[in-house]
Amino acid sequence: MSRFDPNFTKHCIDTIGPKTDPRSREVLGSLIKHIHDFAREVELTTDEWMMGVKFINSIGQASTPIRNEGQRISDVIGLESLVDEIAHSMVTDGANPTSSSILGPFCIIQDPAPGGHPTLMHGKVTDLLTGKGIPNAVFDIWQASSNGKYDFQDPENQTDNNLRGKFRTDANGEYHFYCLKPTAYSLPTDGPAGVLLKLLDRHPMRPAHIHLMISHDEYKPVTTQIFPKDDPYLTTDTVFAVKDDLIVDFLPRKDDPKAQMDLEYNVKLAPKSYSGVSPVSQTTIGLEARL
Amino acid sequence: MSRFDPNFTKHCIDTIGPKTDPRSREVLGSLIKHIHDFAREVELTTDEWMMGVKFINSIGQASTPIRNEGQRISDVIGLESLVDEIAHSMVTDGANPTSSSILGPFCIIQDPAPGGHPTLMHGKVTDLLTGKGIPNAVFDIWQASSNGKYDFQDPENQTDNNLRGKFRTDANGEYHFYCLKPTAYSLPTDGPAGVLLKLLDRHPMRPAHIHLMISHDEYKPVTTQIFPKDDPYLTTDTVFAVKDDLIVDFLPRKDDPKAQMDLEYNVKLAPKSYSGVSPVSQTTIGLEARL
Repeated sequence: MSRFDPNFTKHCIDTIGPKTDPRSREVLGSLIKHIHDFAREVELTTDEWMMGVKFINSIGQASTPIRNEGQRISDVIGLESLVDEIAHSMVTDGANPTSSSILGPFCIIQDPAPGGHPTLMHGKVTDLLTGKGIPNAVFDIWQASSNGKYDFQDPENQTDNNLRGKFRTDANGEYHFYCLKPTAYSLPTDGPAGVLLKLLDRHPMRPAHIHLMISHDEYKPVTTQIFPKDDPYLTTDTVFAVKDDLIVDFLPRKDDPKAQMDLEYNVKLAPKSYSGVSPVSQTTIGLEARL
Repeated sequence: MSRFDPNFTKHCIDTIGPKTDPRSREVLGSLIKHIHDFAREVELTTDEWMMGVKFINSIGQASTPIRNEGQRISDVIGLESLVDEIAHSMVTDGANPTSSSILGPFCIIQDPAPGGHPTLMHGKVTDLLTGKGIPNAVFDIWQASSNGKYDFQDPENQTDNNLRGKFRTDANGEYHFYCLKPTAYSLPTDGPAGVLLKLLDRHPMRPAHIHLMISHDEYKPVTTQIFPKDDPYLTTDTVFAVKDDLIVDFLPRKDDPKAQMDLEYNVKLAPKSYSGVSPVSQTTIGLEARL
């Protein structure tokens, strides 16, 4: 099959010592095997390998406490989205995020957002099996502003916790608050991710989205993001996070001085004892922006 | 076969745009496929992925102009050695390294090396087909000192070009010079390579070795390294560069005030018109230390 030494990869993996735990052995052994298979498959040249080494070095050099270029590169090659699919295809109890009392105001727009469209977002959190409303569920939301930046990336225009909120559903399981219709944005392209995207001849855009995390002590938590259906980047999200059931419809809202748009979004939660997978497509991509 | 979306990886690869050149498309497409296959095979968790992201970021952060941690990591997983095998298994003309006139003195030990064993290294460069000596071949050598460091890593103890030399063979194709019996050394373990080696429960040692590059205008050049047969790390070289035909025997040398050891090393070079592979196991690992 191959004209290369058939024992080399096994030899490299067999050098892993006895003190390595079984999971590390499995993960690193598989990683070494696939990297070797890749190199043999394309007959990687010395120059190409050295370009790769320099590229790997450039990733850490471009990273800072608020810029994770390694994560961005893995997003651009679809790895974070894939890990997300793997995580959510498995039936797990899921650690429940710590929920505190109501933190957010009823409008999460603290700072002016030029060109932004204030939106009343509302809906009901219900039990997947009974269809009844779930009171006291925690509804956690965060989003970028109309310039495509999160508060921590944009200290000149945004105060801490701008466009972040944490609410509880009422006695009927309903919630409502004002936020912005989200805005598409570009990944930063002035670092290694920009180099890779250019090499792949791809645009750097993420479709507009709102991050959500919905939880309750008695239910499996859901972490996801939702996308407006008129966004031009839905089919070419540069981090591959869009799924059909996460696309939502923003409608015009009349006679509300606080909002131009209206978004209804309902969520079904599965009881912790439920053995199937979550009824909602989940994605933890961008979770780090929750801070 | 897999319970994961069977179209996801193809979709990611299909986003590569038309301006990407065919070789980049082949290499990066294969790399993406193998990374995805790895993640699915081990069902990589979100925490494990994030550990990997942090590890990748740490590689560049530990690198400096004289410390290439990305290269070291790829050495530790056997990738440089594999790329080397791929390069030398192909029949190529091989660009001839630029050779200049004799630069080195007849002894390449410029600075005292405590514990080092001065050695007379000598031998003959012959034509693979005729067996005749090749006059005027360039014999280029570099090695670490008895403390395991190359000159550029050790400015306190070594002057520039310590333990480096470039010689030409005489009318009979013979060469000789004084060098050191080489010393085993540890890769630096105070960075990401140390983290990985600890996780793999492996030692960080390279067996002692001498780097060689032998060339002549009419012959295919050879880049290799040779290892003393009494080295304890021959079978566990942490960068996987040892091959059986590169192991050599240092013998005691008597009645020479300049050297305690003697090493004979003969090299066969193939004419440029020769269509087979090189008769000598080659490895360019550590070539960057040639500077």
